Amino acid sequence: MLVAPDKVKSIASIGGGPIGAGWTASFLAHGYNVVSYLHDPAEEKAFRQFLSTAWTSLNALGFSEHGSLDGLTITFKLTDAVSNCHFIQESAPERLDIKQSLYRTLGDMANPLIVIASSTSGLTMTDIQLYCNTPGRTVVGHPFNPPYLLPLVEITGGKNTSPEAISWVKHFYDIAGKKPLVLKKEIPGFIATRLQEALWREALHMVANGEATPEQIDLALINGPGPRLALMGQCMAFHVACGEGGMATNLDQFGPSLKLPWSRLAAPELTQELRDRMVDGCNAISGGQSYSELAKKRDEGLVAILSALKNHRTIFT
Amino acid sequence: MLVAPDKVKSIASIGGGPIGAGWTASFLAHGYNVVSYLHDPAEEKAFRQFLSTAWTSLNALGFSEHGSLDGLTITFKLTDAVSNCHFIQESAPERLDIKQSLYRTLGDMANPLIVIASSTSGLTMTDIQLYCNTPGRTVVGHPFNPPYLLPLVEITGGKNTSPEAISWVKHFYDIAGKKPLVLKKEIPGFIATRLQEALWREALHMVANGEATPEQIDLALINGPGPRLALMGQCMAFHVACGEGGMATNLDQFGPSLKLPWSRLAAPELTQELRDRMVDGCNAISGGQSYSELAKKRDEGLVAILSALKNHRTIFT
Repeated sequence: MLVAPDKVKSIASIGGGPIGAGWTASFLAHGYNVVSYLHDPAEEKAFRQFLSTAWTSLNALGFSEHGSLDGLTITFKLTDAVSNCHFIQESAPERLDIKQSLYRTLGDMANPLIVIASSTSGLTMTDIQLYCNTPGRTVVGHPFNPPYLLPLVEITGGKNTSPEAISWVKHFYDIAGKKPLVLKKEIPGFIATRLQEALWREALHMVANGEATPEQIDLALINGPGPRLALMGQCMAFHVACGEGGMATNLDQFGPSLKLPWSRLAAPELTQELRDRMVDGCNAISGGQSYSELAKKRDEGLVAILSALKNHRTIFT
Repeated sequence: MLVAPDKVKSIASIGGGPIGAGWTASFLAHGYNVVSYLHDPAEEKAFRQFLSTAWTSLNALGFSEHGSLDGLTITFKLTDAVSNCHFIQESAPERLDIKQSLYRTLGDMANPLIVIASSTSGLTMTDIQLYCNTPGRTVVGHPFNPPYLLPLVEITGGKNTSPEAISWVKHFYDIAGKKPLVLKKEIPGFIATRLQEALWREALHMVANGEATPEQIDLALINGPGPRLALMGQCMAFHVACGEGGMATNLDQFGPSLKLPWSRLAAPELTQELRDRMVDGCNAISGGQSYSELAKKRDEGLVAILSALKNHRTIFT
């Protein structure tokens, strides 16, 4: 790669929509110089407006002492954006033909030692890099909306991506204040979107069947599992809910209830291997912390979240 | 009913496990007198320990000026618990035979004008009330764990439950500081558990297929959709993510992507009727608030949650 992850100074952000603008805000707040490429000068006004909104939140959350809006340059020429940068974050429209054509161009235009990360949420890098002459440095770096606040970035490579590019970009996102997750396989929807999509489809089924309204679905989430999911994932929520026995108790005791019609999504066979992976995984996360330590942290965290939301103006009128 | 929902003074809480103890803590914090029935004197020590843990969190969150642990009486005789109360919250073990037998007993023992609410998460009231002679006043009042912190209570009736009992218990929970949700139909898993279960099954599939570890699943949730779900449900998250166009844009633009293999849960047919229900539902929640108002509230809420979690000791070691 051109520079080490901690030597990155200049970033090219491609795309004038909310994701491109969100990345730009996030990088600026972390002290990087950013050249943002917009496809059309008509996008500039909304882009600057979005940036200013994001900046208010970034300010409230607190950011790097080097963070500044002064680090921004806007350009309408792709070569200007990518010619002097150390990293490219691409947030072009979510259409395969557009991305393939863009990666064909970028593959020749940008220094081959620079990593290009795509914000795609639904396409695979194997497909996107198909006509790129330098596919080894192309990766997926999928943020969660809004990207200037939520820290998750899911990383995958395509068939022709080099392991070095994956490793480099993981370290870079770490330094840039994100929480990168390198996926083991290139699966559609990555991890977070798949989970969200399963929940979303169940919600749509309920609305289609007249079992719940969108309002009931949202109220059920924010007053029930939501605060817990902000704090710990579903695995650890069940691990802690089952007391000393943890995930092993959950699966051994409630395993049969996986067969209950609690969701339209059929459950996988609860094999010994799956059971062990779940139990070992939760034990690995716990790292020796006792049940009471975990439960205490859960409750403290929930109190913090619920207190914070107490004074928040709700969207539910 | 015996007294109006706002005249309730004494509550019988049946069950010495975490849910029974959690309800007891919640009711005490709201100033009620609670008689807790434990099946076995051997449970008392753990019950009191649990109560004391819950009290710490309730204290940190702030509660009614009348809230006090002094309002607690523990008994091992069911008649003592239910003979002088205004409401019964039942959190017996989650086995149909145990609940059916208990409701047969309670049906004759407790004043028929008193509502009995079951904490069951997986059984239906139609089944539970089968051998109860006074089924009209029996309802499901399903809390979310931990019940002393999370406000959701899902309410359903069984085949023989009276509408008056449903209406009474909804008002009672409102007054008791909970966020009750009356379901339109008696569906297995209610709303929140169904949604959570869909997510959980998808997670199990991913672990079974070697696509993700439990740790990756949890990190993806807490750094991605989790904080958003603490603040707004999935419907409003998508509504706000789509800018001015809201849910209509989401479904009209991304509707086709429901067919993508983003989850093992097959999507429902996106009929015009389903589309309209989703769009109308989100508009009803918005109640005339503009996109920018909603987005501003979302960002302020996320900042509040993320700031609160900044100083929280993480369970991820």
